This record gives sequence, structure tokens and C-alpha cells, in this order.
Amino acid sequence: MLIVMTARATQREIDGVVRVIESLGFRAHPMPGVTRTAIGVTGNPGTVDIGHFENLPGVAEAVHVTKPYKLTALDLRPERTIVDVGGARIGDGSLAIIAGPCAIESREQAFSVAEIVQRSGAKFFRGGAFKPRTSPYTFAGLGEEGLKILADVRQKFGLKVVTEALDESTVDLVERYADMIQIGSRNMQNFTLLRRAGRSRLPVLLKRGMAATLEEWLLAAEYVMAEGNYQIVLCERGVRTFAQHARNTLDLAAIPAVRRISHLPVIVDAAHGTGRSYMVTPLARAGAAVGADGLMVEVHAQPEQALSDGAQTLTFDEYEQMVNEVRAIHKVIAQAGVKFAKNSG
Amino acid sequence: MLIVMTARATQREIDGVVRVIESLGFRAHPMPGVTRTAIGVTGNPGTVDIGHFENLPGVAEAVHVTKPYKLTALDLRPERTIVDVGGARIGDGSLAIIAGPCAIESREQAFSVAEIVQRSGAKFFRGGAFKPRTSPYTFAGLGEEGLKILADVRQKFGLKVVTEALDESTVDLVERYADMIQIGSRNMQNFTLLRRAGRSRLPVLLKRGMAATLEEWLLAAEYVMAEGNYQIVLCERGVRTFAQHARNTLDLAAIPAVRRISHLPVIVDAAHGTGRSYMVTPLARAGAAVGADGLMVEVHAQPEQALSDGAQTLTFDEYEQMVNEVRAIHKVIAQAGVKFAKNSG
Amino acid sequence: MLIVMTARATQREIDGVVRVIESLGFRAHPMPGVTRTAIGVTGNPGTVDIGHFENLPGVAEAVHVTKPYKLTALDLRPERTIVDVGGARIGDGSLAIIAGPCAIESREQAFSVAEIVQRSGAKFFRGGAFKPRTSPYTFAGLGEEGLKILADVRQKFGLKVVTEALDESTVDLVERYADMIQIGSRNMQNFTLLRRAGRSRLPVLLKRGMAATLEEWLLAAEYVMAEGNYQIVLCERGVRTFAQHARNTLDLAAIPAVRRISHLPVIVDAAHGTGRSYMVTPLARAGAAVGADGLMVEVHAQPEQALSDGAQTLTFDEYEQMVNEVRAIHKVIAQAGVKFAKNSG
Amino acid sequence: MLIVMTARATQREIDGVVRVIESLGFRAHPMPGVTRTAIGVTGNPGTVDIGHFENLPGVAEAVHVTKPYKLTALDLRPERTIVDVGGARIGDGSLAIIAGPCAIESREQAFSVAEIVQRSGAKFFRGGAFKPRTSPYTFAGLGEEGLKILADVRQKFGLKVVTEALDESTVDLVERYADMIQIGSRNMQNFTLLRRAGRSRLPVLLKRGMAATLEEWLLAAEYVMAEGNYQIVLCERGVRTFAQHARNTLDLAAIPAVRRISHLPVIVDAAHGTGRSYMVTPLARAGAAVGADGLMVEVHAQPEQALSDGAQTLTFDEYEQMVNEVRAIHKVIAQAGVKFAKNSG
Repeated sequence: MLIVMTARATQREIDGVVRVIESLGFRAHPMPGVTRTAIGVTGNPGTVDIGHFENLPGVAEAVHVTKPYKLTALDLRPERTIVDVGGARIGDGSLAIIAGPCAIESREQAFSVAEIVQRSGAKFFRGGAFKPRTSPYTFAGLGEEGLKILADVRQKFGLKVVTEALDESTVDLVERYADMIQIGSRNMQNFTLLRRAGRSRLPVLLKRGMAATLEEWLLAAEYVMAEGNYQIVLCERGVRTFAQHARNTLDLAAIPAVRRISHLPVIVDAAHGTGRSYMVTPLARAGAAVGADGLMVEVHAQPEQALSDGAQTLTFDEYEQMVNEVRAIHKVIAQAGVKFAKNSG
Repeated sequence: MLIVMTARATQREIDGVVRVIESLGFRAHPMPGVTRTAIGVTGNPGTVDIGHFENLPGVAEAVHVTKPYKLTALDLRPERTIVDVGGARIGDGSLAIIAGPCAIESREQAFSVAEIVQRSGAKFFRGGAFKPRTSPYTFAGLGEEGLKILADVRQKFGLKVVTEALDESTVDLVERYADMIQIGSRNMQNFTLLRRAGRSRLPVLLKRGMAATLEEWLLAAEYVMAEGNYQIVLCERGVRTFAQHARNTLDLAAIPAVRRISHLPVIVDAAHGTGRSYMVTPLARAGAAVGADGLMVEVHAQPEQALSDGAQTLTFDEYEQMVNEVRAIHKVIAQAGVKFAKNSG
Repeated sequence: MLIVMTARATQREIDGVVRVIESLGFRAHPMPGVTRTAIGVTGNPGTVDIGHFENLPGVAEAVHVTKPYKLTALDLRPERTIVDVGGARIGDGSLAIIAGPCAIESREQAFSVAEIVQRSGAKFFRGGAFKPRTSPYTFAGLGEEGLKILADVRQKFGLKVVTEALDESTVDLVERYADMIQIGSRNMQNFTLLRRAGRSRLPVLLKRGMAATLEEWLLAAEYVMAEGNYQIVLCERGVRTFAQHARNTLDLAAIPAVRRISHLPVIVDAAHGTGRSYMVTPLARAGAAVGADGLMVEVHAQPEQALSDGAQTLTFDEYEQMVNEVRAIHKVIAQAGVKFAKNSG
Repeated sequence: MLIVMTARATQREIDGVVRVIESLGFRAHPMPGVTRTAIGVTGNPGTVDIGHFENLPGVAEAVHVTKPYKLTALDLRPERTIVDVGGARIGDGSLAIIAGPCAIESREQAFSVAEIVQRSGAKFFRGGAFKPRTSPYTFAGLGEEGLKILADVRQKFGLKVVTEALDESTVDLVERYADMIQIGSRNMQNFTLLRRAGRSRLPVLLKRGMAATLEEWLLAAEYVMAEGNYQIVLCERGVRTFAQHARNTLDLAAIPAVRRISHLPVIVDAAHGTGRSYMVTPLARAGAAVGADGLMVEVHAQPEQALSDGAQTLTFDEYEQMVNEVRAIHKVIAQAGVKFAKNSG
């Protein structure tokens, strides 16, 4: 932490701040400058409330320096994490494609989509059995019945199943039927759920919250890791801004930013990240190009009849075209020597 | 819903859209204009996905018209809700003051603050026993031990106790010891928790999410009400924006906006809404002036030693001065005939 | 500036950074910590590009410490500025009310509003002769004809006239007819205009840009002051966020924040800050309560027929009621000893 | 426009709204629904203030339907614009690369960069002679001296020169020396400047404002076009959000969104859009992949010694690698049949 004094701060005030720092067990490093003095603080484990200092006499501001995340940080664990999802890998330099309907609606619907997903060569199937919906009056998923359909998809098509859990009891169910637990944006700071996922044997797909900073996102992953589950894939899915032409503003700069500070793989959800089907393929291409470890999209035989999120769902033809394009882009950047899975970020 | 055709849409495309509308069981109202045609849609219960229409040939855009909230809406339930918290009321035209430490740290700490809160004439005591913390490495509250201290505060000082629950099992505990269940910003769309609160006999304080629109906030309340609990107080606590001079940007326009469309009482959290103690009193005054039904603030004998949120906490002297100021302002606007609890909003 | 090294930075990398700092003529202050080293930099005049350091080997990040504004800063000029507008004062502890129509439409319209403004005891009349409009197809003001009407209002009603200038040539005209030059949000970083205003003998009302940080806003004022014009009033008018219930999100925390770091007076525009007439009075009350030096509102005999911004304009009755309420609130906080114009902020 | 009545609106209130609509010269189309009535308004040229209606008795809200931009709209001018910059084209399906230093610092600096830019096969050279700087105390460009250097670059290297103008008088100068006038983010709504550019014979590069909606951006282009200059290239350069890991949040969804509603070409500024050099290449790749008509980047022999924006500037090696990567991606999507310059968007 760094404490900056006002230009008019007296020596007495500076000494006072030093005393408070030392009384809390830290070391103080005063640095007199041309117009004002700054005081470095070391020895703090990153949990000190900045406000303790900002209200002291003569203090202009206090600035956090040490980052509070530990297990997720690249500089403390330099080897990149490769996540194993039922035998398929995310983060190994390949481009993982996770596709499927927004919600599981019926066996027929799930199987028709799974066939297309399998045929495209994708290894991961997504589909919601428990859907967090903004309104209590909309379709909230088939529940365990949906999970059973997902388990059948896994068996019949050999796809790895990724599906969302909403709370401790749905984690229990998801563990029984699926290969990876998805934690949605609205639950990114549902710490009870994060801790439960941290005690699971399944890997976790952790979506970024709608207004989450990178630090908060990594700290959410830290909750999972702190319980012992190190198999986490981060998922950028757009943040909320003033811009209204898309449902969310997909923040692709988050991909290189995460890669620079964390060893965890990170993918892009081009469906929720845009909310409009005509944008999904261009932004999926952009996700591949920016260097994501994977992409998540939604596919449906008849998007306009989907029970949820039809507006951001690809048809079968659009999906197959999209897969071809993102694969070709991934190949280009792999050949160009872009470092995905290496430490240099 | 209103569907707007492009300027170049053919009659055939317009007829196609009308057919889709009618096939879904709604009525279509085409309105030819100077440069383009719009088509009104009626008979829809507010749950149709706008995307069904936006991708049809000739459609420029589709616009939602009917609001999806029902139980929370003023025009469907014109009488304003008065919430009863253990015998004390919020939303009856008085200015409710909810004060206390951020977290319960010890019996001594809680009692020392409660004495000041009681002396100020406030009726509600706040204090966290379960704290949702961004980092897994910070103090997360005393748990049930904290609830017991809160119950003692209630008994000894006659204050009504408001405290946060994080999940179903902490709701069980909060119900045993407190008068009102607080649902925090990070949990505003934790639908499992909202449904559980909806089955409680206690009133609910529902904080706005960090990036929640008014509609999402009211729909979160709708989740609680849909389970049968109509005793809800909304709490504006700042939203996340680009502005960095405060921890959040307190959106006081939300108060008249809520009042115009909903019958629920709404209060202002000037502590979390600013995150800096020097701003708390000015913004609490602003909250009283804008017409809020109450204010929430944090008080501590020695804010700089508080285990959480010290930076936004008032000292005893600051708190007493603040209470005097907001009461005087509330009196002024009450005398000026500002309509708090009446229908005219 | 503070440079934070990664946990894995070598001594050689640390020495390298120190050398770069010294080669640029600054002093380096290395501070070894438990897990990493930070290096303080002093002697820099605040204009060094942080990026010079962030890309050096071993550097995790660089943090600005010294603020780049000088003339606007409270700690370098501790006496609060009182701005003289044609003999009337802003920033002296009184509550300045600046009212009038959005745009000057005709002599009759201006006079009818001016009569109400004068009768209310307000001293300042606002009205646009040059209107910056988002679309090139909308009414853009009467131009010099509008300025002449404003000059007549000044003469007949004794009100001080505040009106917007858009560029160097309109500053020339405004100087001829008005008492104060308004610089609008869209022009907050129009540096040519700011410099021209800095060479004017008239005081300047500087509105905050739609996405301006406090620092950028003060630096815009710094442009005016750097040319020699120290008579500046800042005006908070809402910022752009995801929230859609108001046209802008009025950021009232900016008032105490400005007061803490700058000696310039600051007022609140409750009309543009909300964009909806039913919100104007509640937010004007909040502006008075938060401690602003003044308020700006729009008034029109028949808002629904105004040529611009009718949606945020008060009727005469609403205006008079609003003035009574904000005056009563200002009196309360003045009596409560809130320090407006004093250094303690 | 669509006017939505409250559920409790009386027939008398509905009739009243119809009368107001008709008195303003428009046609009213009442549509009775299950719970409420909506009234379509046609015949309005898109300039009616929505607020005229929102305050009428019984009205819940008014919704704009017709878009106010005309000349920039795809559905009113279905052929895509190809912009001619001194003989080189933007918007013809190729990937335009605009590269150069942030600011022109000296002939040597400019020539050394121009050599690299030319060698890479790029056709456009950028470099600022007039720099809008947040602080009045930082380097603001060489002025006309810089323009002369740019003219020499043009002559010696055959590159087309793009450079920023800040006001009417700098447009005069830029016209004398350059091939394209850049209008920066801070000036996107400087209407005096836009109108002046609209009277120029040079094409215009119009950067999106820091908090500009798509509609505002297109209306800014509309200002230029309304004066007769139809040669405009739009440039996405990031918007301001709560996210702090990059200087701005690059909004790549704006590319397909612009393409869907406008015939103007649109490019991506990966330098300002990120503000950090390690992000520039990944985001430039993403810009190519999303389907932009071009890319803008900053290059410098020694970024850490650049007088401005060093933090977002590529070295020569990084630049050449970036060009190879974006060209390969552009080729992939061109082969995949992605429609850049065609009407189908």
C-alpha cells in the first residue's frame, strides 16, 4: 500500500501516519518528494482496509498495490492450468468449442442439436436444466429431467456436458449427471455456491459477473480454489455498459488481461456476450482471434421457437459455418506462434 | 410489443410478420407510416422473446412495451405498501433510520453502537453476522454468535434488528434472531435465496444489484412476492460506473423512479453508496431530500479499527450530527407537502 | 509515481528500473517488501507517461500518485473561490439559482419566464441562443437574435445572464451580451474553446462531460485557468451509465468530492441531470442538501410546447414550489453549520 | 413513436392524448390491449420531443421508433460507401492499415516509422500534429511544422496521410498537407468542427466519442454529410466503462451493429481502444476477425521514449508481426465468404 500525503501535510502528520502503520504491525517507508511526501507500507497481507488511512490527518489518498488474489495469480504459480473435463482438455492450446441449446427443452431437441455439435467436431455440449431467469414468470428449465437428458447426450454422442448449478442442492444434482459445473454471471459472488463448487470433484466454468472487475472475478475463482478445486475455466460473457446496440458489451481485452495475471484458461461466450444472433459469429471469430482458449455458443434447430434466448441462438447452418471460420482463425494464430498456453502470456 | 419494419420492407414481408404474430396467438395491428410500417402486438403476457421477431425478413427492430413486473407495479396495485418491522413501520411517511456497525464484532462493540443509535431516536439496528466478502481471506462475520448478540441488542435497547442472510440456511438462522432479512447487492439475483425469503414471515430489505436496472430490481422483488411475502423495502446503494471518486455512484434518481412505478417503500444506503465517510452525511441529507422512506448508515466507536468497511463508517459524533440534519430536512419537505406515501408519487 | 515489481522480479530487473528512473532525471526509492519490491519515484512533474515503465522487464504495474491539476487544487490554493457574475456571487455560502428556458424562442417566451425567475428571488437567468443538438435536423437556437433578447432580459429584469458558447466566434458574441459563458458537456474537452474562454473577462460555467472523471473535469478547468481566467463554476449534470430510468445518472457524490480537492464552486443541473420533469424537483432538493453552491433548472410557460428539452422543464407553479423547497433545505443545512465555503470542506 | 397508456388510464385520457397528437399534425393509431392501450403515432419526422407526451395524464411512457439518422442509414441508401483517400480505398473489401506514431516528434522519427509502415505494405500513415491533451501541461504537437513533415512522408513514401484537426483553423491547415481529416473522440460532438469538415474536399475519419451511443455517432456523421461531404470512415476506439484493466473497453460488437444499419465503412483503433501495448496485437486480430474495414495502430522505434501514448505503441518488430497476423485472418474470413462490403451485412 502507498499513502500519499497532501502538499500541506506537516511533519507531525507524517509521523502520525507512520505511527499508525507501525502500530498495525507493518513497516513504513516515508519518501519525501518535491511537493509532498508519500509513505510506502510493506508487510501487509493485502487485507488492510484502505479507509483506515484515508481519514487520518494530512492524508490525501491511499493506494492498494499488492493484489489480493493468490492461488489464481500467474506470478505465484507460473505454470498454466490445463483443465480436464471428463477426459477432454481446455487450456492446452486447442480451441475448445462448447455448444448447445440455451435450455434443454426435450430429448428430441437436445439430440438434434447434439448431433450437429458432434458432427462439427466440438467436444463439449452445453444446455441449461436450471435456468436463472430475471422474471419469476418465465421458463426456468426442466430441472433433474433436463439433467437426465444431458446424461443421455453424453452417453450417446460422447460429448462432455457443461451445465449450470444455482445453489448447493443443484450442485449435488449436476455432479451426478454432468462433466462440468457452470456458475452463471448472477452467481459470480454467491459465495455459498462458490464454496460448494470448491468442494466438488468436477471442474468449474466461472462466468464473469455483469459488472465485475478482473480482480473480483479472480477472487471469485479464489473462493473455489481456496476449498481445494483448482480446475477452473473463466468465461468472459460481456459486461453491462451504457451501450444499447448489444445486450452486453463483450470485453475481449479481458482475455489478454487475464492471461497476463492468471494461469487459468479463459473462454468467450459469444451468445450472452452479444444477445443478438447476427453478432454471434463475428464476435466468436474475434474471440478466437484474441487468443481465447475456447468459445461458447448457443445452437437450436429453430431459434425463433426456443423457450429462452432465441435472439442469440445460431441455426445449424450458421453454427457449422461459424465453426469453420473460428477453426481457420485459430490455426492462423497458432501458426503465427501466438503463445496461448505458455507463461509469457 | 411493437415491431418496426425497415423502410424497404415489402408488403409480403409485413404480411409474413403479421402471420407469425397471429400464429403465436396474439393480435397484430399494422400501422402504415410515411416511410415505414410499424406493427403493434397485443395479447402477449410480457414473456415473448423479442428476438423471435427481430430476425424475421423486413424487420428493423422490436420494442418491448408492457412491463413484465406485476405484483410490484403501482398501476396494478395503487395503494402504497407500509412495511411492518417488528412493530415499527417503514413507508408511512416517517423517515426510517437504520444504523449500526458494518459487522458485529463483539457484544461490547454492538452495545456501544446500539446505545448511540437508540439515543438518536432511530428505531432500526443493522449489523452483519454473515458478511459476503469479495476475498475469501477477509473477516466474514461471527455467524450465529453475531445473531445472538443482535438478539440481545433487540432485547436490551428495543431496536428492530436488520441483518443479512446469504443462503437458505442463513435465512433459517436470521428468522430465529432478527426482525428483517437483508438481501445484499451480490445476491439480488440469487433466485434460490429470493424464493426462500418469499416464504419467510419476516419482511425483506432488498438491495439493488451493482448493475441492476430498475426492471431487474423490481423483478427480484417480484420473486419474493410471488412466494407470498409482500413486505419488501427496496434499498438503493449505488451502482457501478466509470466514476472512481466514490466506491459506487449513488443513483438518487432511482427514488422518484421507483416511487412512480411501484408501491414499495425505498430507502438509501449512504454508506455503501459512497464508500467514503466524508461523503456519507452529505449523501444521507440528499437521500432525505430526494424523498426516500429511510436511510441506512454505518456507525462505529472507532471506524479506523472496524474489521470491515471502516472507510465508510461514521463516528458517534458524526452520526448524531447527521441524524439532526436529515430529520430537519425531512421535516422541511414534509411541511412543503411533498407526497411520500401517497399515490400521486 | 510508484512502480510495483512482480514477485519473481530479479535484483537485476529492479536495478534496471532504477536506472531508467534516474536516466529520466528522477529519484528512485526502492522498498523491498515481503513478496515483492516497490519503487517510489519522486521529482516527476506529473507528466511522465506511465507506460514508459509498465513495459520494462520485471514490472507488474505503475501507479500515478501526484495529481496533474495545479491551479484548481485545494491543497495548493487553500482559499475557496467566489465567482462574481456581473455583481452577483456564486460560492459565497448562498444558494445560487440559475433558471430559464432551455432555448430562447422569442422575446415573449423569454420575458414571461424571466418575470417568474425574478419574482422567485433568483439572480441568474439561463437560456440558449446557440444549442448543440445531437441531430443536425433539430432546432439549434436563434443565434445572435437570441443573445439580444437575453440582453434585454438582463436590462429589464436585472437578472445576470448565463448562456452557452460553442466555439471561438460564439464566445465573441456571448461576451458582448451576457454575464457568464457556459461551456457544455459535449465541449468539456474542446480545448480550443476552453483556451478562448480562458482569455475572456467573463466568468465560465463549466459543465462536466458525459463520461468525464473528476480529474479530467478539473483539468478542463485548468485549461481555462492556465490562460488567466480564474472565475470558474463547475456544474455536475449527470453522467452516462447503463441506467435507463433517467436520461443521465446524476452523480451527487461529485459535489463533496470536488469540494475536498478543489477551491472552485460547484453547482447541480437538475434538468439535464435527470431529463424527466417529475425528477427535477426531488433532485434539485437533493442538490441543495448535498451542499451544492447553486442549482440550474429549466422553466417554461408550457413545457410541452418548448422547442427543446420540454421533457425536463418545470412549469411556473412547479418552479416556484421547487424554489421554496430548496431554499428551506439550504437554510436547514446552513443553520446546522455545514461548511460550504470554508476550507474544511 | 408509440405512446403507452397506464393500465388505469380512462377513455377520456386516451382521447386527450389522441387530440394532442392530431393537434401537432400527426396521425394517431389507438390499439386497445388486454390490460392497457397503446397509441401509435405516424407522420412525425423524427424530431418530436418524447417529453411532450410523457407528462400527459394517463401516459405511462412514450417510445421512439423512427431513427433520426437519414443519410447514414443503410435502409435509405443500400449501396455501401467506398471512401477514396488520395487514391487508396477504404471499404472495398480490403483491410486498410493505418499506422504511424501517436504524435509527430521530428522528421527523423516520422521517416523511420514511415519506412516500416511502407515496407509492411500498409497504405495509410497516421501521426498527430495537433494533439488534444487532457492536461494543458503536456506536449500538444508540433503544429504546422508537424504537418509539413507529414507532407514530406507522403511524398517520399507514397503513403496517404491521416491527421487530426481540432477546430476550423486546423482543418484549413490539414487540408493543405494531408489526405484525410481525423476527428477525435473528444470532438465527436463538436458541431462547429463537424460542419467545417462537411465542407471539406477531404474524407473524414470520425472517431466514436467516449460515451457515444451508435445513434449519436451516426448523427455526428450525419452532421458532416448534411454539409455535402459523404466520404466518411467511422472508427471504434473503445468506450468508457467501469472496467480498469484497459484504458477503454473496445466495443467490437459496434462493427456488426454499424454494418447492419449504415453503409459507411468502419475501422478499429486497437491502440486507443486498449491503451496497453501488450493488448494491441490481440485486439487488432480481433478487429480483423470481427470484420472491420481497417485497423489503426501506433508504432514507434522506441515506444518508451515517445512523447505521448508510449504505453499503447508497438515496436517495429511487434508491428510487423501484427500485420502478418491480421492479414492472414482477413484472408481466412474473406475466403470464408464473409460479406464485408455487400448489402447483406
